Amino acid sequence: MTTRTDIETAHARIRTDIRRTPLLWLDPALCLKLECLQRGGTFKPRGAFNRLRSAGDLSRGVVAASGGNHGVATALAAQALGARADIFVPEISAAAKRTRILAHGANLVVGGATYFDALAASTKHAEATGAVVVHAYDQPEVLAGQGTVALEWQQDAPGLTHVLVAVGGGGLIGGMAAWYAGQGVQVIAVEPETSRALHAAMQAGRPVDVPVSGVAADSLGARSAGALMFEIARHHVAQCVLVADDAITAAQKHLWQTAQVVAEPGGAAAMAALLCGAFVPPPGARVGVLVCGANCDPGSVG
Amino acid sequence: MTTRTDIETAHARIRTDIRRTPLLWLDPALCLKLECLQRGGTFKPRGAFNRLRSAGDLSRGVVAASGGNHGVATALAAQALGARADIFVPEISAAAKRTRILAHGANLVVGGATYFDALAASTKHAEATGAVVVHAYDQPEVLAGQGTVALEWQQDAPGLTHVLVAVGGGGLIGGMAAWYAGQGVQVIAVEPETSRALHAAMQAGRPVDVPVSGVAADSLGARSAGALMFEIARHHVAQCVLVADDAITAAQKHLWQTAQVVAEPGGAAAMAALLCGAFVPPPGARVGVLVCGANCDPGSVG
Repeated sequence: MTTRTDIETAHARIRTDIRRTPLLWLDPALCLKLECLQRGGTFKPRGAFNRLRSAGDLSRGVVAASGGNHGVATALAAQALGARADIFVPEISAAAKRTRILAHGANLVVGGATYFDALAASTKHAEATGAVVVHAYDQPEVLAGQGTVALEWQQDAPGLTHVLVAVGGGGLIGGMAAWYAGQGVQVIAVEPETSRALHAAMQAGRPVDVPVSGVAADSLGARSAGALMFEIARHHVAQCVLVADDAITAAQKHLWQTAQVVAEPGGAAAMAALLCGAFVPPPGARVGVLVCGANCDPGSVG
Repeated sequence: MTTRTDIETAHARIRTDIRRTPLLWLDPALCLKLECLQRGGTFKPRGAFNRLRSAGDLSRGVVAASGGNHGVATALAAQALGARADIFVPEISAAAKRTRILAHGANLVVGGATYFDALAASTKHAEATGAVVVHAYDQPEVLAGQGTVALEWQQDAPGLTHVLVAVGGGGLIGGMAAWYAGQGVQVIAVEPETSRALHAAMQAGRPVDVPVSGVAADSLGARSAGALMFEIARHHVAQCVLVADDAITAAQKHLWQTAQVVAEPGGAAAMAALLCGAFVPPPGARVGVLVCGANCDPGSVG
């Protein structure tokens, strides 16, 4: 299981590759971490850089399957490290994300209806070429890389009592929950009602397949929770809440109108939980909300 | 002349009214201060709150004339302090800014082609009502309030050698230059080629009228530099540079594409100076760029 030491090691490894994203306090009890300002537009480069810098030899290239954001991050990291990247994306991936993948010099392969179709194609590619695989969420180096969000946040805002984090496949919350385990900070998972892989896993006692749809599907629409993250989440995620699509859209507007922050639907889901009452902070809580991505048309939030 | 003590006093007075805006380091030698995430969408509430909190009795109301952003800020500050606000805006003011003024419960008076027409009308209103006037830039409390941007920045990024600041009437750079005076930090003024009030004042040795136009006119289009700021600027602004409208638009796109930051044209002007080469940092420089506003349609930056 991912440890705090793994995450400290990851942070030392990638700290010059990534941005230490800033905090924005909206009031003394509400702290946003603006991971939407990260290189590549989301938290994902943390895991990708940690995986690639750990892998050593990248001469056979790099491969990833991704609904979009992980593909952008892997392309960016591979380009920075001078490696070839092949990125497999499903047909539902957003145009803005495909454009960013191509802008980082990667080879883009569009095929299949879902993330899992793209994953199968990427696995074949890896077997044929020996390319280094960067999984979107279910890989130890990826979990440790994403966990560096929590390391920075605890250093910069040591007094938080709760942090709200959106969940797709769970690499981000898995890494963050591993960091915050035993630290007196409750990690709250937020999923769209229509993409509830972690909810379903918690109910079943193991990752199970769920249908995915909705406004955040292109970033949070994982068909199942990761096996590695689930072992962390079952012990160290305090609560799982669901938000409706209209709450996500309202949160995007709210972030723009009150803080001039642009977030894509998946990036606004955690804020949505607070605004719509899916999560109600107890008296005295000091709440952190992770705004985890902004790979979207900026005009979509106004 | 505005002193560091005035600015420290202002900061103590307004610190719970405003956000301490975060820094985003794009590389080890380039630090953005994201004042575009301030309440009201720009730096302007700093000055407005400092003026209103200094004024004492607000029972006769508050009045301001503003191309938009200062009006938003004054409306916001008056609402927060429970005072009536009348905001006089010229016809060129942007729709997004008018909407925000109204959202803060102010009475909006649209009239006249330019800021100075609105100013004249607001002065009549103040004489008739005894309302507290908040000037957009040429008032000691406003200068000291805007100077708190520099106080925070020096505390949070003590090693900067240069800071680039956009100039309209000059309240912001006046306050900031007063703070940085004698601190070993060069303050660089950035104006649009088509709204060059400070340039003209520097050449003439006193504030003089200039024509104003261009993409940033609704925020930077002051017809002359403030008298108070000019006495500071002539001693403590190291360099004045000009940027073309297309450089400003390119800087807006760059801020979005590389950092997912939305800036209005005036808010992106300082970044434009760096990107287009109007300001070239000397070797070893550690440059700060102030992104000072985001009251715009977010779709305008994509």
